[in-house]
Amino acid sequence: MNPAKISFSRIGQLANPPIISHIMAVALENPDMLSLAAGFTDTKALPVQPVRDATLALSSNGKTPEYLQYGTTIGRPKLRKFVAKRLSQIDQHQSPAYNLDNVMLTTGSQQALYLAIQVLCDPGDILLVESPSYFVFLELLKGLGIQAVGIPVDENDEMDTVALSGMLAGWQSEGSLDKVKGVYIESWFSNPSTHCLSNGEKTALAEVLKEAGLLVPILEDGAYMELYFEEAFPSTSIFAIEAFDGFPRLFFGTFTKPFASGLKVGYAICDHSDILSKMVNVKGHHDFGSSNYTQSIVETAMTDGSYDAQLNKGRDRYLQKMEILNEVLIQQGLPDSGWNWQKPAGGMYFWVKGPVQADTSIESAMFENAVKEGVLYVPGDLCFAPEGPKSYMRLTYGVLERDDLAEAGQRLANVIKQSN
Amino acid sequence: MNPAKISFSRIGQLANPPIISHIMAVALENPDMLSLAAGFTDTKALPVQPVRDATLALSSNGKTPEYLQYGTTIGRPKLRKFVAKRLSQIDQHQSPAYNLDNVMLTTGSQQALYLAIQVLCDPGDILLVESPSYFVFLELLKGLGIQAVGIPVDENDEMDTVALSGMLAGWQSEGSLDKVKGVYIESWFSNPSTHCLSNGEKTALAEVLKEAGLLVPILEDGAYMELYFEEAFPSTSIFAIEAFDGFPRLFFGTFTKPFASGLKVGYAICDHSDILSKMVNVKGHHDFGSSNYTQSIVETAMTDGSYDAQLNKGRDRYLQKMEILNEVLIQQGLPDSGWNWQKPAGGMYFWVKGPVQADTSIESAMFENAVKEGVLYVPGDLCFAPEGPKSYMRLTYGVLERDDLAEAGQRLANVIKQSN
Repeated sequence: MNPAKISFSRIGQLANPPIISHIMAVALENPDMLSLAAGFTDTKALPVQPVRDATLALSSNGKTPEYLQYGTTIGRPKLRKFVAKRLSQIDQHQSPAYNLDNVMLTTGSQQALYLAIQVLCDPGDILLVESPSYFVFLELLKGLGIQAVGIPVDENDEMDTVALSGMLAGWQSEGSLDKVKGVYIESWFSNPSTHCLSNGEKTALAEVLKEAGLLVPILEDGAYMELYFEEAFPSTSIFAIEAFDGFPRLFFGTFTKPFASGLKVGYAICDHSDILSKMVNVKGHHDFGSSNYTQSIVETAMTDGSYDAQLNKGRDRYLQKMEILNEVLIQQGLPDSGWNWQKPAGGMYFWVKGPVQADTSIESAMFENAVKEGVLYVPGDLCFAPEGPKSYMRLTYGVLERDDLAEAGQRLANVIKQSN
Repeated sequence: MNPAKISFSRIGQLANPPIISHIMAVALENPDMLSLAAGFTDTKALPVQPVRDATLALSSNGKTPEYLQYGTTIGRPKLRKFVAKRLSQIDQHQSPAYNLDNVMLTTGSQQALYLAIQVLCDPGDILLVESPSYFVFLELLKGLGIQAVGIPVDENDEMDTVALSGMLAGWQSEGSLDKVKGVYIESWFSNPSTHCLSNGEKTALAEVLKEAGLLVPILEDGAYMELYFEEAFPSTSIFAIEAFDGFPRLFFGTFTKPFASGLKVGYAICDHSDILSKMVNVKGHHDFGSSNYTQSIVETAMTDGSYDAQLNKGRDRYLQKMEILNEVLIQQGLPDSGWNWQKPAGGMYFWVKGPVQADTSIESAMFENAVKEGVLYVPGDLCFAPEGPKSYMRLTYGVLERDDLAEAGQRLANVIKQSN
């Protein structure tokens, strides 16, 4: 019998496969394919011993195995307290915002982002994002029917607050300004641009929004905040920036990238209690709480110091890998061919800018060539909303081993040289 | 500064705290409170050793620690294969439905339910449910603006397919039948009624739906399927019932209740590939995959036999606890006071029916009295949609220890006797 024809909901109709899944499918077809596309973490650097030790400690004799019982929807109080305290220390700032009552734990920070968008935005609403922005988040918005609009940038690819101000004034006179329901920024080693936002840049953003009367929630993604290589970027979260007083503030963080992606523990901190309560209530409907066990492991690793040791190990490895890819791309003459990048100081990505006429898109000859040569990248145009230049590519050095990384860099350089 | 006034989305506006949270808050105020309300699993029966052994096995020397790396959105293939094969064995049936390609892993089965509703139903749509039904699921529907409508029951509290047929015919003539987007049934030791649906009952349901031209998705929840005490209920899943050919079928299962609630591993099996793909795509937006580590632990426990050993242990303990509560309620004379129940043959609940005039609701004198006496129950009216009788209560023997269980039963009996 033929399968019944389904009338899908609006969300069902918008539920398209992620574009990256096409790229991954291509990778699977060629076992020799080296992927500079997948944002996986370094397998060799995964915290086998800390996770094992945490499990042994949790299961030691005489202890109640509450870690294997249901937890609460909002998550473990002790870990939420660690989260609040740690951000307060990083910010070197104290305020009522850094309190466990403002923290919820989620299945990665992605779930926290989804919950925030669910409670704040209806289909057709607008969310301001950076240009470029995190493409998985852009797909999340698309899946819920929310319109992402990129904040204009200047010729140095910096946020152009004057142009933003003009854009908002235009919407104001059109009567569409109240469709803007929030602003999403990645302030540390952004995926994909590796850019960090200084407190000055963030303050300028707050001032433009305030001028426009747009006191909307600010969603700050700090996924890579602690994944600097040598020195932390000298900035604070929006909780410590006075210009954001009066804005509802949400900070999204994760233990996935800095500790273990297989545990999928992330969080949101929100200083607006109504927003947080509603996010927790919707999470109650999603799953009434993420795994209590993985939260307990992270909590243990935060207590016994293995979290920080692991973080330092990750920093070293990512720095070394970044250097390898950086060197091979330079040696292979990419800058001479008009392809440039900012050497990253943290995170997991290169954001490589080609000549204006370059086309890296998924339908391009260059992408086809890359597949033929056995190397994958993320086409940069996926990271712009509603659309953007096709001359960028995102590379990651997270998952490949050193030798493979050098080989992948050479293959990519060949592809780029052929395109000139 | 006052917090900014937020314009919440429709979902944000509907995001109310769960009613059970009020009951739990009451419990927290009295440290001596004994809760027959919380559907937690037995802490003493949690699989400490199996989880520990699985972690040690996964982390043994020489193995790639892929279990700590990101998994895929759909979940681990080996565990998905186990899931499909196990249901095929339980059903003693083979068909293309029992295939790993039809299985997705989720954060508990609750997330799978949420995803199914998201892709199938728009606000204002109707989902048919049993009377009574799982109240957490009813809240999920309310949170998304979906209307739950109870299938009529006869005087023996059995599904009344004749009355259902009449109801559907009424909607047909009103022109509202196409608002019905699916049917949700709990076929084994239902939460709250502890009722099992026989293949005959399910076939009758399918026939009425088919007659009405309503070939909508059937959502079968098997959370307690394997949690029988002595013998499995002699029925199969809807995949093995011919009357459901032509209906898109979804089966929801979990390792949370039968193994460890702290791991939060659940699943959906769906024989309609478009529905499953869309659920996976929306899960990509939720979290792009639940914890790979907790899935790996369940997979290991399924392989080394500790899953089945744990299940048997759970069956024994729940049987013993059920007997304790059953006995105390009888000894205390509840049946003589007009309060009756079907002795459960599995699951974690008693569904106690009082005299017609009884009022167990959260605003009732009885609930207030129970709080005073130090015992909690779930008011039965929460389990009916859109509304239902107030004369039921749901009790669980999952979490309390034996002595506490007996004491809780006595307190409850006192409350009930006072109400007469």
